[in-house]
Amino acid sequence: MTMDRRGFLLAGAAAGVGLALPAGARAAEAQAEKKQAMLRISSQEGVIPGKSLEEKLDKMEKWGIEGLEVGSASGREESLPKALEGRKVKVSAICMGSLGGKLVGPDEAERKSAAESFKRSLTAAGAVKSTGCIYVPCFNGEQKLPNKEIRKILLDVMPEIGEHAAKAGTRALFEPLNRGEAYFLRQLADAASICRDCKSDGVGMMGDFYHMSREETSLMGAFISAGKYLHHIHLASYSRVMPGQDAGEPLPEPPPMGLTFVHEGSMAKSPDRYTYIEGFRGLKIIGYQDFMSFECGCRGNRDEEIPKTVAFLREQWELAKI
Amino acid sequence: MTMDRRGFLLAGAAAGVGLALPAGARAAEAQAEKKQAMLRISSQEGVIPGKSLEEKLDKMEKWGIEGLEVGSASGREESLPKALEGRKVKVSAICMGSLGGKLVGPDEAERKSAAESFKRSLTAAGAVKSTGCIYVPCFNGEQKLPNKEIRKILLDVMPEIGEHAAKAGTRALFEPLNRGEAYFLRQLADAASICRDCKSDGVGMMGDFYHMSREETSLMGAFISAGKYLHHIHLASYSRVMPGQDAGEPLPEPPPMGLTFVHEGSMAKSPDRYTYIEGFRGLKIIGYQDFMSFECGCRGNRDEEIPKTVAFLREQWELAKI
Repeated sequence: MTMDRRGFLLAGAAAGVGLALPAGARAAEAQAEKKQAMLRISSQEGVIPGKSLEEKLDKMEKWGIEGLEVGSASGREESLPKALEGRKVKVSAICMGSLGGKLVGPDEAERKSAAESFKRSLTAAGAVKSTGCIYVPCFNGEQKLPNKEIRKILLDVMPEIGEHAAKAGTRALFEPLNRGEAYFLRQLADAASICRDCKSDGVGMMGDFYHMSREETSLMGAFISAGKYLHHIHLASYSRVMPGQDAGEPLPEPPPMGLTFVHEGSMAKSPDRYTYIEGFRGLKIIGYQDFMSFECGCRGNRDEEIPKTVAFLREQWELAKI
Repeated sequence: MTMDRRGFLLAGAAAGVGLALPAGARAAEAQAEKKQAMLRISSQEGVIPGKSLEEKLDKMEKWGIEGLEVGSASGREESLPKALEGRKVKVSAICMGSLGGKLVGPDEAERKSAAESFKRSLTAAGAVKSTGCIYVPCFNGEQKLPNKEIRKILLDVMPEIGEHAAKAGTRALFEPLNRGEAYFLRQLADAASICRDCKSDGVGMMGDFYHMSREETSLMGAFISAGKYLHHIHLASYSRVMPGQDAGEPLPEPPPMGLTFVHEGSMAKSPDRYTYIEGFRGLKIIGYQDFMSFECGCRGNRDEEIPKTVAFLREQWELAKI
């Protein structure tokens, strides 16, 4: 079994027997090691309770949250790295937005101005070592062009922006949303195909459990299609509160792969607990390396509920076998 | 390991130990049994050499091809089942087409007429026990409506057609194509989301390795997203000849899952051999039960090349471990 061999290689590496293996096996081991998925929990700044960033960071460290997602890095290029100095918390992503949809509009001057604005955000994102700047090409109503035209414009403008991002040490990250917010980009496979067509290391994408629960038929399939282009994740339940807060029936055991993977596009239909296991399987298969970050509300007291959610996610991650 | 347990259940069932298991285990076993994927090779009628259907069927049986895909069942409702009587070959699918794109156009009378035509094809498909009628909603140039409008019309008209299909014992099957042929529907995850939104057992979908190689970033991810809606497959290489005829480097061993699954959207970049293994892994994960059918050209003598391709596909199926 492939999985067994891979499991062995990973186990071997952990036990420090790597040097005893022949060169080919060591190469395979290095590749397997490199690709082993990691669970690195992050949160948007506003989700964590606290009167100051320092207070929030203290809580995050205590709760095992390792990433901080902020709305903008512009103007915080020096203060943010300073606040994180000596901390276990790193900047995960910058949640930029859509630039008013102007980067994919018919007006050339507006496109140019939006591209410059995007580049400034990327420069700041690079300065704080963010994995990327989250970008929604077009919220509903921001542009009247049909999808085909928007996609064409996007492929025209993104390679140069991607090059700027790569030079700044970060990425532009497409975020698919649900149709109620942005019809243009709704599925991870579609975003991945745009990334592929952009042919730029500085262009990537993210996925959001909340939006995915409405638009994807399989969270696992969606994450696998996103593959190497996936560099950030937003965490939320179906009703957009903390993961696990929508949980229904408890899981007696991890469901066998192949029997439960088809997600009905709605966390409401399947217990919240199944959702993360299925999604996490996809992430383990692609060897996901980046953060997943809370973008959600919270039922109840945050100081009590957030640590519970972190524990819940770690349990789900363990249950996600491949 | 989940996979081990599943493997055990399947092995147990094969060895006839099912009756010795407790009730819960038997139920799990039945579910696992039901879901074990099958490789059932089919061919379009025109791909097989032979002067008569009888001659073609003789060759198909000899070569281990179990399914026959035809362009239409209308007018062959009696002759086709008769020709297959006592044969190992069953009808796989009907390759219908787009109905001129008229089912998703702005003209109500044309939509009505196209729906009636679709229903007649489905009635005939049911009579020959086809898994479904393959349907392309709109080839490029057939309609000028933007994708969003076409999708809306499709959701209006398909549930009733799906109901007709289900009553006839068959299905309407969406076929995603590459952008050069049909911009409207290019990815399996998108087709699956339309199937889900149609909410009809008579509405399903298919995938075509040739088109997928151009539009998907991961064949495995795409098939997993298609999941339970997937009821037919077209087989072809990247250059649309027999699978394996584009083969590059030979595979020394099955590549470990998670290291090679991300398909670059082009079989030209990755050897043909990897392509089928990756796709077949997805099919094994979803427990695919239907046919996969040749829709492709052939380099060289068909009587020699087709049996080689069948052997190649069986080898790839074995190499596809999950």
